[in-house]
Amino acid sequence: MFTKERALKWLKKGWLLLLLTCLMLLVTRGIALAADPNGAQTLVGDPGAPVDYVWVLVCAFLVFMMQAGFAMLEGGFCRAKNTANLMLKNLMDFAMCSLAFMVMGFALMFGADKAGLIGTTGWFLVGEAYDVGTYLLFIFQVVFAATAATIVAGAVAERIKWKAYFIYAIIVGAIIYPIYGHWVWGGGWLASLPLGAGHIDFAGSGVVHAIGGIVGLAGAMVLGPRFGKYDQNGKPRAIPGHSLALAGLGCFLLWFGWFGFNPGSTLSAHELRISVIAVNTNMAAAAAAFAAMLFTWIRNKKPDVGMAMNGAIAGLVAITAPCAFVEAWVAVIIGLVAGVLVVLSVSFFDRIHIDDPVGAVSVHGVNGIWGLLSVGLFADGTYGVIGLFYGGGWGQLAAQAIGAVVCVAWAFAMGYATFKIMDRVFGIRVSPQEELAGLDISEHGTKAYPDFPYVGG
Amino acid sequence: MFTKERALKWLKKGWLLLLLTCLMLLVTRGIALAADPNGAQTLVGDPGAPVDYVWVLVCAFLVFMMQAGFAMLEGGFCRAKNTANLMLKNLMDFAMCSLAFMVMGFALMFGADKAGLIGTTGWFLVGEAYDVGTYLLFIFQVVFAATAATIVAGAVAERIKWKAYFIYAIIVGAIIYPIYGHWVWGGGWLASLPLGAGHIDFAGSGVVHAIGGIVGLAGAMVLGPRFGKYDQNGKPRAIPGHSLALAGLGCFLLWFGWFGFNPGSTLSAHELRISVIAVNTNMAAAAAAFAAMLFTWIRNKKPDVGMAMNGAIAGLVAITAPCAFVEAWVAVIIGLVAGVLVVLSVSFFDRIHIDDPVGAVSVHGVNGIWGLLSVGLFADGTYGVIGLFYGGGWGQLAAQAIGAVVCVAWAFAMGYATFKIMDRVFGIRVSPQEELAGLDISEHGTKAYPDFPYVGG
Amino acid sequence: MFTKERALKWLKKGWLLLLLTCLMLLVTRGIALAADPNGAQTLVGDPGAPVDYVWVLVCAFLVFMMQAGFAMLEGGFCRAKNTANLMLKNLMDFAMCSLAFMVMGFALMFGADKAGLIGTTGWFLVGEAYDVGTYLLFIFQVVFAATAATIVAGAVAERIKWKAYFIYAIIVGAIIYPIYGHWVWGGGWLASLPLGAGHIDFAGSGVVHAIGGIVGLAGAMVLGPRFGKYDQNGKPRAIPGHSLALAGLGCFLLWFGWFGFNPGSTLSAHELRISVIAVNTNMAAAAAAFAAMLFTWIRNKKPDVGMAMNGAIAGLVAITAPCAFVEAWVAVIIGLVAGVLVVLSVSFFDRIHIDDPVGAVSVHGVNGIWGLLSVGLFADGTYGVIGLFYGGGWGQLAAQAIGAVVCVAWAFAMGYATFKIMDRVFGIRVSPQEELAGLDISEHGTKAYPDFPYVGG
Repeated sequence: MFTKERALKWLKKGWLLLLLTCLMLLVTRGIALAADPNGAQTLVGDPGAPVDYVWVLVCAFLVFMMQAGFAMLEGGFCRAKNTANLMLKNLMDFAMCSLAFMVMGFALMFGADKAGLIGTTGWFLVGEAYDVGTYLLFIFQVVFAATAATIVAGAVAERIKWKAYFIYAIIVGAIIYPIYGHWVWGGGWLASLPLGAGHIDFAGSGVVHAIGGIVGLAGAMVLGPRFGKYDQNGKPRAIPGHSLALAGLGCFLLWFGWFGFNPGSTLSAHELRISVIAVNTNMAAAAAAFAAMLFTWIRNKKPDVGMAMNGAIAGLVAITAPCAFVEAWVAVIIGLVAGVLVVLSVSFFDRIHIDDPVGAVSVHGVNGIWGLLSVGLFADGTYGVIGLFYGGGWGQLAAQAIGAVVCVAWAFAMGYATFKIMDRVFGIRVSPQEELAGLDISEHGTKAYPDFPYVGG
Repeated sequence: MFTKERALKWLKKGWLLLLLTCLMLLVTRGIALAADPNGAQTLVGDPGAPVDYVWVLVCAFLVFMMQAGFAMLEGGFCRAKNTANLMLKNLMDFAMCSLAFMVMGFALMFGADKAGLIGTTGWFLVGEAYDVGTYLLFIFQVVFAATAATIVAGAVAERIKWKAYFIYAIIVGAIIYPIYGHWVWGGGWLASLPLGAGHIDFAGSGVVHAIGGIVGLAGAMVLGPRFGKYDQNGKPRAIPGHSLALAGLGCFLLWFGWFGFNPGSTLSAHELRISVIAVNTNMAAAAAAFAAMLFTWIRNKKPDVGMAMNGAIAGLVAITAPCAFVEAWVAVIIGLVAGVLVVLSVSFFDRIHIDDPVGAVSVHGVNGIWGLLSVGLFADGTYGVIGLFYGGGWGQLAAQAIGAVVCVAWAFAMGYATFKIMDRVFGIRVSPQEELAGLDISEHGTKAYPDFPYVGG
Repeated sequence: MFTKERALKWLKKGWLLLLLTCLMLLVTRGIALAADPNGAQTLVGDPGAPVDYVWVLVCAFLVFMMQAGFAMLEGGFCRAKNTANLMLKNLMDFAMCSLAFMVMGFALMFGADKAGLIGTTGWFLVGEAYDVGTYLLFIFQVVFAATAATIVAGAVAERIKWKAYFIYAIIVGAIIYPIYGHWVWGGGWLASLPLGAGHIDFAGSGVVHAIGGIVGLAGAMVLGPRFGKYDQNGKPRAIPGHSLALAGLGCFLLWFGWFGFNPGSTLSAHELRISVIAVNTNMAAAAAAFAAMLFTWIRNKKPDVGMAMNGAIAGLVAITAPCAFVEAWVAVIIGLVAGVLVVLSVSFFDRIHIDDPVGAVSVHGVNGIWGLLSVGLFADGTYGVIGLFYGGGWGQLAAQAIGAVVCVAWAFAMGYATFKIMDRVFGIRVSPQEELAGLDISEHGTKAYPDFPYVGG
């Protein structure tokens, strides 16, 4: 009930909060407002800037939508009892990654280069970084960073402790993703490899997807398989997800978001090549969905719904690196390979007892690497990069292979260390009782669908 | 079965319809086609218009997506037995608000100003208003108007009669929203306050969100709490929503739509500040989601999934007014406050026995006001407005406070009157039997999920 | 378990795949890279191109989102036991249609015209077609082609064999859609009718929606009604869909996507008329949702949730052809008619024993025709087309009627032949046992919601 005393108590708390805020402000008020924070100068210098700003912003917004896509896909592919937990994870990894990337990730990745290894300016996005151009780059990059983080959610789903997930998301956004990103996109050493055009990863098959997928692999290995994933003879059992409707929605949302991810990576609408990139993105996904569907149709006699979805996404992952350098029929080939690859890879990891509930390692890790290599094979020279099949020799392929190896090594080492250390300190896996009850109840004291009875798992 | 007689009967009905339409047309055919309906003239006068048109249109489309976001969030936070009803409400409030805004809301808000109080031209969008520039403004504004209307749905959910909801949505779109909107955005008296830069509400923390939230408060008060919300001792009980998956989706869709809501409010891509606005929007949401999650984690020992979602949206609401006037780290602070505020506010309204099923009053009302005030505190002077902490004195804060008080008073008075009058005339709450059975059955004779058994509530 | 032998086996399979790919490449390496694949030349010739590219691409992406909308709407309107099947269908019709349209549909539709009947260049999108401008047109058109294909899914849902669906989607994308499309949009004979401005279908009420709806009608007729749709006396029974939440989401996603569909069809942001088109699109949908809701409210005493959703989409379909040629209040009238029409039409098809589970024929077929005719009635002359009510005489209406008749005849003949031939060859309907068990189990060996018990249907 509402009483005067209570009202006063609440008011007091409110003032306390306001006071704290004010204090923080006074401390930081000396910060210089620099560069071009309102854009007037930039516009004078580059009258064509508005269309580039619109392009990059809209694409960034589409990439953000991939967060919804991952939440639906991962949620749909997991069991009902872990759905609320997955929603929170997907929301919070974006939030934490955004904060971590603003505090230090962006500076490490795109700040002034130090020895080809890390960036060193732009911390907290303050000072000289308070500039319309820098903010434009930031919004596009922060949604990429968060994509890398969220990929892992699927591989470690249904058994990782909330605390471990929370910490890991910060580390990916603050350190693992931006440092490797600097090497490829921030003027670092991989971009400058003296082979072909240097290591080329147009929109992040490696930087975003393989990094995410391989960190997920490390997480899945440290955690071990879910209860019931293997029978007494060690044979893998399918643990079906609780909603193929949500998974289907997620698949479409991801495809939609990828239209920002790949074409937006020109960072300029004055590169009319964006139309080619959009077409390639679409065709690779279509071909891969077809290939995965057909492959399971032949192998299992019935077309596999979940695998077709994963196939589409695998195609999108694979075309991410080469999308700007090939034409549409080559995108189809890259997609066809990706669609088969993802099915084989999922079986492979199932057999070697690495339990990846949604297939994130196969989709993003394996196909991320395939995407990197495909640049070295198929780049046709019309957009500055030329691969093996178009007379460019082995140089580009070598640069791609080196990048792929470095990517896997870095992501695995850093990911494994992160999860292993956390595991030693506080244990990253929930107890068997909690896992059986489901993370929704054990971690959040709630059910995702309290109005419906659950059966099975 | 299909018979000749039946076919003829249907045909006759069809002709009747067509005839009526034709009659209407002949009556209205005299209407002048004026201004620049195809844009040829406008383009000559402003060769940079295309990019502004693209920007505003795309942002309007993103804002439209917030309707899907609200439908999913409100649907997810309510019980399964009221889901179909909530879907129809969310669809129809957009439809009715669109029609009402076209008939008179747009004219009241953006027509030629009369004494700083209302606009007076552009009714029905005909005559001089048949112009590419006017239509551009209209499409962006109509999705805003509908946002204000749809916010209320959450606060009055699970017990309001369909008829009452239907009428109220028209009144918000035709009168409550546009008149207050005129005062702030249409050249009215609040914009011209001789304090600071006048009352400033960049994208509508007040105009859209506080208006919606406070009208929702009025509605919730007139309706009273749902059955079972309070136990015999008056202690509030949680009534969990039926799908945190839908709610999570809704949260992401809202966040996505907000990227149109805030940056699009420049109404021009030639304002490169749009990149700063986009970053601020994102960071405030991230910080608020984090704050709400952390606050519940500490308070309840378990991070609250629904509250983290509401936190994100609260951060978006709060940054809506100041998004153009601050830098990213300040957006983080505004968001952190919003995230805590929403948790406290939800508890507060629970305790004073105002039952707001989805927390709309706390998210949109309370944080809308916080957003308005934060302009007066944090505006840093780089974009034309300067607040208290940056040496602008108390003037701007005073203008913000006055606007906030007017906003709350107007919305509450109009909202309360609307619901109270309807309640007197035909009763706005369904019967106890209908409420227990759920609005899906009682109002629409359907179930949202007929293939699944419902349990509990 | 992981053994060396197994690893080698997998490796071998991988190499085989790679080898095959390489072979394909060597064979096709001779293909000329022509036209302007990177856009440098195009930009020099048309410095305003970037904003047009951004506009067309973003609109294409929004249209892609309609695939998610259809998946959710159709999924929601069907029973839980067929949901996984519908997800796969929606995913794969897009994929197959993309591939088929790239292989031959695009060439048939937009290649160099032959006698007004078909296009003849641009096969496989290679050679001269490897050009930024051609790819831009392709990405916008491929999402349209896929929309036509996906509409059919609803009409044939819950009983068609996967194989039949798969084949039909290819035929629509490769032949049925592009040939008719050529007649209207590719410089074919309907566009050149010597009546009014020729047959006019701005964004595809006929080309996309009526084609899809009427092919769906043919499919529904060949298949026959679902089990239980008619009682022993032949009276139709409602078979409620399993999730009005998903259907509601689908409705919003479709509305959202339509903002790309209609305004994007200018193919240029330099046509500022895009703002008028966007407003008309919105108002027709709003009016139609209102009309359908009100009509069922009066007729059945309770507003029908699903019908209001179908009403909104019917309004969108109807405004698709006239959206560029009318003003907002006329769009409202077109929408009001559409909203009533869809309700009457659904009842009509129910009575003549054509079972269309989601109402696709009424929404897309019937209202597609209404949209075509409305151009002939309401086009107001401000954008190059003038109809009956604005003093343009009967010519335009005649051109519209001819186009509508041709559209229906072509779609029905081709659709009927396609389904009938397949039915003769392998039978397109699943067995009664399979239909009762649901297509998820019988066609894919899975359940869409394994964690929940199903009841009823």
